[in-house]
Amino acid sequence: MGTAQISAGHRKWVRSLHRKRIGEKEKAFIAEGFNALEAAIETKLHPILEIITEQDHLERVLALASDRGMPIYTCSRSVIEELSTEKTPQGVLVICSRVTCSFRELDESPPETVLYLDRVSDPGNLGTIIRTSLWFGISHLVLSPFCVDPFNTKTIRASAGAIFKARIYQPVDSGEMRKFSKRMEYLKVAMVPHGGSHPDALRKEGRKIVMLGQEAGGLSNDLMECADLSVSIPGRGDVESLNLSVASAIALYEIAQRRAPFR
Amino acid sequence: MGTAQISAGHRKWVRSLHRKRIGEKEKAFIAEGFNALEAAIETKLHPILEIITEQDHLERVLALASDRGMPIYTCSRSVIEELSTEKTPQGVLVICSRVTCSFRELDESPPETVLYLDRVSDPGNLGTIIRTSLWFGISHLVLSPFCVDPFNTKTIRASAGAIFKARIYQPVDSGEMRKFSKRMEYLKVAMVPHGGSHPDALRKEGRKIVMLGQEAGGLSNDLMECADLSVSIPGRGDVESLNLSVASAIALYEIAQRRAPFR
Repeated sequence: MGTAQISAGHRKWVRSLHRKRIGEKEKAFIAEGFNALEAAIETKLHPILEIITEQDHLERVLALASDRGMPIYTCSRSVIEELSTEKTPQGVLVICSRVTCSFRELDESPPETVLYLDRVSDPGNLGTIIRTSLWFGISHLVLSPFCVDPFNTKTIRASAGAIFKARIYQPVDSGEMRKFSKRMEYLKVAMVPHGGSHPDALRKEGRKIVMLGQEAGGLSNDLMECADLSVSIPGRGDVESLNLSVASAIALYEIAQRRAPFR
Repeated sequence: MGTAQISAGHRKWVRSLHRKRIGEKEKAFIAEGFNALEAAIETKLHPILEIITEQDHLERVLALASDRGMPIYTCSRSVIEELSTEKTPQGVLVICSRVTCSFRELDESPPETVLYLDRVSDPGNLGTIIRTSLWFGISHLVLSPFCVDPFNTKTIRASAGAIFKARIYQPVDSGEMRKFSKRMEYLKVAMVPHGGSHPDALRKEGRKIVMLGQEAGGLSNDLMECADLSVSIPGRGDVESLNLSVASAIALYEIAQRRAPFR
């Protein structure tokens, strides 16, 4: 497959993908850099639609992708800067297919742990949560309506490549999630700022849905009420709360300990 | 104390404080919002030099601060937008004294746990680490040379008020830190991505300095070599690493467990 220069109309289309509404309509998103390119090639979960690269990086891009049949466009540094949302763009943009998984498929091979994120609004938090989940081997993330776009550039950056490995289901409302949980016999765990059990309760064997709420307001009443177990991270009260991605990380860490019991 | 309008020259000075070099020279930093104002008043660690508020918030500002003798300036929304680095400014800017603590003072009342941050470069990570530390009752943070400015607006925002409660020592180079550790009998713990002990090793009683390295390259060789113990967070290998503030949080969480033993 040869390479081509990128036209003005094409550039306009690429820029438009940064907007959630357009990205969803076009079923595409933009990831940046060689790490993203390698992850996209490796996992195939979000097939690459095209690659846009600075001339300087063309050789390296071709070495990775030349025999894979996707279009490769070259452009100048200034065009990369126009298309990127990074302060210092890495020089390679990977346009990928937005693939979200069908929630019904989870019935066929229900994983031990599922994360349910209720209206998480910060893209950096969402990306970090995806990264941390994958680190601990938890790859199924279910997003409520009104969550930030998981294919937002900032989310993708914070995920450090994990977006290409995560299975994301969205939007799934609380009713649907509750039915799934009942049908498949999951324990619904609500992460709450205060008053819940110690996180080591998460080490117990058995299927769990861990529910995390939005940064400002936490979980909806609806989800709080349906929880089988509430868990809080004990603190010393010098600050009001933990950052959401930090609280998630501690919960995920404890879940992972069930495989490596306390010594 | 009365209120006054803010002059053009004064506005220029305030804007200049966003730059690290100027902030350090002027020994001042800017925090935004009522939470910051309340925390600054409550803790007194970083005395308030002045408050700048939109006319709309003046009454609330006066209720909190009127009898405390600091100048209060009022201005229009557009001036607040000019002075703030927030996308949607909250309408109140608090100019505070940059106070960094003297590292020598730690000898007098050495805390059980000290964090040593080696060239941490992301302001959001640093702020989140400060927030998480305070949550777990660890308030002494020692920063190496070349760390991001702890009084950066983004750091302060991510700290969610914790910057006003943390005791920050900087810059402290690795030699000085090692001498302190030897003199005061601290265990030097290096957080490393792979190959270290399980984090539950952090539950052991005794003085510890937990050393965390920069996002990209980790700890310097120097620090790696001087460590008495290396700790890694076991993962499943689906991503390369954890975010620095997440790794710190899991370490701090484990340290906090020494007070509440595993059930």
